[in-house]
Amino acid sequence: MSNARYTPLTQSLPATVPFVGPETQERARGSAFEARLGANENIFGPSPKAISAMQEAVGGCWMYGDPENYDLRQALATHHGVSAQNIVVGEGIDGLLGYLVRLLISPGDSVVTSLGAYPTFNYHVSGFGGVIHTVPYVDDHEDPASLFAKAAEVGAKIVYLANPDNPMGSYHRGEDIVAAMDHLPEGCLLLLDEAYVECAPEGTAAPVSCDDPRLIRMRTFSKAYGMAGARIGYAMAAPDLISAFNKVRNHFGVNRIAQAGALAALKDDAWLDHVLKQISIARDRIGDIARDNGLTALPSATNFVAIDCGADAGFAKRVLDGLISQGIFARMPFAAPQNRCIRISCGPQVDLDAFAAALPAALQSAQSAK
Amino acid sequence: MSNARYTPLTQSLPATVPFVGPETQERARGSAFEARLGANENIFGPSPKAISAMQEAVGGCWMYGDPENYDLRQALATHHGVSAQNIVVGEGIDGLLGYLVRLLISPGDSVVTSLGAYPTFNYHVSGFGGVIHTVPYVDDHEDPASLFAKAAEVGAKIVYLANPDNPMGSYHRGEDIVAAMDHLPEGCLLLLDEAYVECAPEGTAAPVSCDDPRLIRMRTFSKAYGMAGARIGYAMAAPDLISAFNKVRNHFGVNRIAQAGALAALKDDAWLDHVLKQISIARDRIGDIARDNGLTALPSATNFVAIDCGADAGFAKRVLDGLISQGIFARMPFAAPQNRCIRISCGPQVDLDAFAAALPAALQSAQSAK
Repeated sequence: MSNARYTPLTQSLPATVPFVGPETQERARGSAFEARLGANENIFGPSPKAISAMQEAVGGCWMYGDPENYDLRQALATHHGVSAQNIVVGEGIDGLLGYLVRLLISPGDSVVTSLGAYPTFNYHVSGFGGVIHTVPYVDDHEDPASLFAKAAEVGAKIVYLANPDNPMGSYHRGEDIVAAMDHLPEGCLLLLDEAYVECAPEGTAAPVSCDDPRLIRMRTFSKAYGMAGARIGYAMAAPDLISAFNKVRNHFGVNRIAQAGALAALKDDAWLDHVLKQISIARDRIGDIARDNGLTALPSATNFVAIDCGADAGFAKRVLDGLISQGIFARMPFAAPQNRCIRISCGPQVDLDAFAAALPAALQSAQSAK
Repeated sequence: MSNARYTPLTQSLPATVPFVGPETQERARGSAFEARLGANENIFGPSPKAISAMQEAVGGCWMYGDPENYDLRQALATHHGVSAQNIVVGEGIDGLLGYLVRLLISPGDSVVTSLGAYPTFNYHVSGFGGVIHTVPYVDDHEDPASLFAKAAEVGAKIVYLANPDNPMGSYHRGEDIVAAMDHLPEGCLLLLDEAYVECAPEGTAAPVSCDDPRLIRMRTFSKAYGMAGARIGYAMAAPDLISAFNKVRNHFGVNRIAQAGALAALKDDAWLDHVLKQISIARDRIGDIARDNGLTALPSATNFVAIDCGADAGFAKRVLDGLISQGIFARMPFAAPQNRCIRISCGPQVDLDAFAAALPAALQSAQSAK
């Protein structure tokens, strides 16, 4: 055994992984997936201008990235009509979630989220000793009213709300979230995860100032901008909260190539529009594939679609396994009742063709095992 | 003020930055540096094969990186003759330092380092509430004997030793470190930072098994491999300590492009040899420049050289300011007596020419201000 004397908290933690990567599954099955549709990645990829910018930046990667992420923060400030002091850039939303939890949560502190919502947030909360309280989804939507009521009940320091939601793809109108915030308890910070908001209908982004002391919102270049592997996202909040990140963040943690790519991606509205149209087409196609197989695709405001397999979690898991065994990487929600579904990323026709070809056999084997 | 209720620890932390980035200084002075010689970056850059691999990987950055860093860990295991279970890959040594400290240090726990050693380690220790105890350098070397004696005295959980050292560039023979480890107290983990070890003489890497429970060693692609901006490094230790990182690390935190680059860089021994020769030439050149100006360059086992300016910290600071005002980015050690020096990265002739051209005026203005 190592000389390492772990903290009591460390000793209490499992060696857990929020998600198993598709590469791990590929190694286990001994072959590559034909279609990679499980991680809410954006298969349409980054802007060609972002690709060029990143390729040009590669030669300069002997230099550390700017620890202030100055250029990108300025561009984001202009993009959102806020101050650069409202913005912190980090190693994806995952990294920023970790920093935020670390800033606020001591062992025993309460946090509220929805049962079955983003597991990586829970991973960070548990990792800092926080106590997670959950409320159920309501009609496959996260429910601001019950989240905020639970937050008041348990004296939560953070309440997590993803809008649009992962894994169900549902959303609330931004103005409805703002209205619900009247019931956000004093001293509870709303963590509004807007990772998928660019994919959602106009009006989904909460119409609330970044200076509003009640919330922090998180955005990413991993989804609509198609740069998940670049690991770059940002949070927007009041300057005092943003500056607190400087107490704990890995100042030189953002990849320099990612900085260049994000800056170029942000400026390419035409590509974003193109991708959003492709996502819309793909959502419709996934809906058609589901219907053709007697299943129901849930309405999606994201770049993935949850398909209700019409039975219980065991059945959905068998469908999922059937897809994976045919080379289709997909995932499913973790908690009931959402785990009656499987979740399929939007992608080009060839990927969805592969999914369409595999689904009938997956369903058949799932049904025959009933 | 934000609704954020910070932890007591967060409230006690300053919003600090271990290092100010050169970009910040460039913005302040209104122009770019002519030579970027201050951040121990490797100006000779990454392997052309790594550059190609990264440029090819850019188009695939819509995918998250493999959270297990499997291919790279396998390649590193082969490279070092250890098991992949001895290796964790992370977002540079900085990121791995943060994870290690988090695993071991609760508020009030003791940590030992050298006065004036790597500030980012101290940043993480303070950030988790650890208490830093220091011992002085001895003849511009970190001193294992006094470090381990202090660790025993204060019951330290971690003792930090960089070999070769930053900021002085000095080193110990690996076998001397192993001999000193006889005095490492039970329950104290030696954190051996070997970031610069590829630049050092044969025999500098400590000849000790990665399964030895007494230490963890850290390596990086930021220095000899020239990929600082890619943010990828690794730690080697006994499997139980390595697997503990899985409790807290950001599993999807490593940039996918960096993974591809590191894998290609590791395989290009010829480029590494080429760079190490260039570094050696540059060290000699920096020595010549120092001598031509009546200064003494310290022997270096790294890709930078500390130059003794021959007086106190105030004088060295004025020399540094004089260089910066002429467009030469350099840095200096933080603590006495090392801060009688300035620190210059190895680089191509053109960069060192610029440094040589600027140094006389910087010295003259520093002397006239005496």
